[in-house]
Amino acid sequence: MTRTVLESKTKTVVIGFDEPFCVIGERINPTGRSKLNAELEAGNFETVERDARDQVACGAMVLDVNSGAVFKNKMAEDPRYADNNFVEPPLMRELVSRVQAAVDVPICIDSSVTGAIEAALEVVEGRPLVNSTTGEEEKLEAILPLCAKHKLPVVAISNDESGISEDPDVRFAVARKIVERAADHGVPAHDIVVDPLVMPIGAMATAGRQVFTLVRRLRDELGVNTTCGASNVSFGLPNRHGVNAAFLPMAIGAGMTSAIMNPIRPVEMEAVAAANLLMNHDDNGGAWIGLSRTLEKHRADGVPFPEAAAAAAAGGGRGGRRGGRRRAS
Amino acid sequence: MTRTVLESKTKTVVIGFDEPFCVIGERINPTGRSKLNAELEAGNFETVERDARDQVACGAMVLDVNSGAVFKNKMAEDPRYADNNFVEPPLMRELVSRVQAAVDVPICIDSSVTGAIEAALEVVEGRPLVNSTTGEEEKLEAILPLCAKHKLPVVAISNDESGISEDPDVRFAVARKIVERAADHGVPAHDIVVDPLVMPIGAMATAGRQVFTLVRRLRDELGVNTTCGASNVSFGLPNRHGVNAAFLPMAIGAGMTSAIMNPIRPVEMEAVAAANLLMNHDDNGGAWIGLSRTLEKHRADGVPFPEAAAAAAAGGGRGGRRGGRRRAS
Repeated sequence: MTRTVLESKTKTVVIGFDEPFCVIGERINPTGRSKLNAELEAGNFETVERDARDQVACGAMVLDVNSGAVFKNKMAEDPRYADNNFVEPPLMRELVSRVQAAVDVPICIDSSVTGAIEAALEVVEGRPLVNSTTGEEEKLEAILPLCAKHKLPVVAISNDESGISEDPDVRFAVARKIVERAADHGVPAHDIVVDPLVMPIGAMATAGRQVFTLVRRLRDELGVNTTCGASNVSFGLPNRHGVNAAFLPMAIGAGMTSAIMNPIRPVEMEAVAAANLLMNHDDNGGAWIGLSRTLEKHRADGVPFPEAAAAAAAGGGRGGRRGGRRRAS
Repeated sequence: MTRTVLESKTKTVVIGFDEPFCVIGERINPTGRSKLNAELEAGNFETVERDARDQVACGAMVLDVNSGAVFKNKMAEDPRYADNNFVEPPLMRELVSRVQAAVDVPICIDSSVTGAIEAALEVVEGRPLVNSTTGEEEKLEAILPLCAKHKLPVVAISNDESGISEDPDVRFAVARKIVERAADHGVPAHDIVVDPLVMPIGAMATAGRQVFTLVRRLRDELGVNTTCGASNVSFGLPNRHGVNAAFLPMAIGAGMTSAIMNPIRPVEMEAVAAANLLMNHDDNGGAWIGLSRTLEKHRADGVPFPEAAAAAAAGGGRGGRRGGRRRAS
């Protein structure tokens, strides 16, 4: 039974076939968030810390930390800032330190800069998830030895030098290559979390079915856990939350075991919790009952979702396991 | 490729592996609806006619018509009314006539009384779905010859004389027996729509997974379409809509091709439409874009869902195919 074990200072999270779906919070990422990017450039980590707390309150089990900032002002004064190999390592070190001071969940170290991942490893507590390698030679040779040395699990993105194939069989073959190469380096299959790459369904009508088929094959044939950037699927469509909220249960039903997603969105978190219940990954429905109470506070009483979730966590334990309302009959 | 063809006076609906999920409206059923039951006893069909129009406006493709009323007042005066074999045939005839005068969609004739099904067949237009046979001998011998004679498709419920088994292998075996017996009578597998029986997950934690596995087997091994009473799964749980809205996409992903459900509920209909889109059963996302517009009218402007849907249907064709908003990019 495939289990990818992640750890923070005191907490263990297992991504696995017989575990609740692992929600990896995506918010701590300056890409496309110009306000956050500007704050990071100014050395202000307030949003980062609040995002860390809010995401965990809403049910994130792991936090992705991405250091891909662009420091435009500093760049104008000092050309070294145009190089992410210069910017990201110290920024990543600071981000990881701030996040694990704010919350106690495992970290997913997310950077395309190997030096930033190494910098994170100097300060991170527990057993993080490395995000990511692709099937590109240079990337494999940079990331896999690092994971082997520190005995760390890694996200494997199923593209290579030729780009992202629209053919799912090619993406499967890339995933298999990464798993084999990882084994050569001493990283076992149960420490590989494959991202089969979710295309926008508005651009490729078969994108959903491709992912469901790929996830099943990755699980059955390679025995690996899987993840994805879940919201990609709805890019460009109206009512995106509605598409995401159907995609997640379908992916979970097909065997997907984690996603990098926005846990602040109640519709998507409700879909994940319901899918966990339907997969028999929610003992006695405790998590569902707890979330239902939070959603009621949010929807009927107008309390923002993170606050309603934090209140529920403080009042009765997340998942409503303490003093939980009896199930209606 | 399995296709179950249903017809009304002028419309054809196909339940099939490569078709949009078939929503069979469940509302015209006096069971558990005491007000409707009383109206029927009084010969008042206003609710029936409104329910027919509302369900079709909301996206029902077929309407289930159930004649299982209990006429308590009449029973007190005339003991013959205690017998459903006496009550249902004329009631069913009237219900079917009223429904097909109000809307032009195929009918699902739903009664445990064979005489009521025969009465419906006297007045129904097109090619209805007969609901249902079980694996019980007496039932098979009553219903299958009727379906063979009129060349009609039939819902096959996977229980028999021993009741509803909690073992999905037994339910599969019952379904296979019905398919085989139907073939003996000349009813082909593509005219059998199996209901694998959805148990409440609050009572049986494995109920969801059982159904997903059964649906896949029924499709792969017997080549039959499937249906279910979708809302059963959430019986007794808080926030039932949330559970149903995850169950439907998961069942559709597993291969389920129809459900008998309440189309007046926007959350469930949104889940079905998103799942159709993700299964590539919604050309150019037309239906999704149309529904998104209806949901916006419903949620942002506070227009009741059936009215918003009816307005969208009148204004732009259901599915938003006429004058549809361009997809945002």
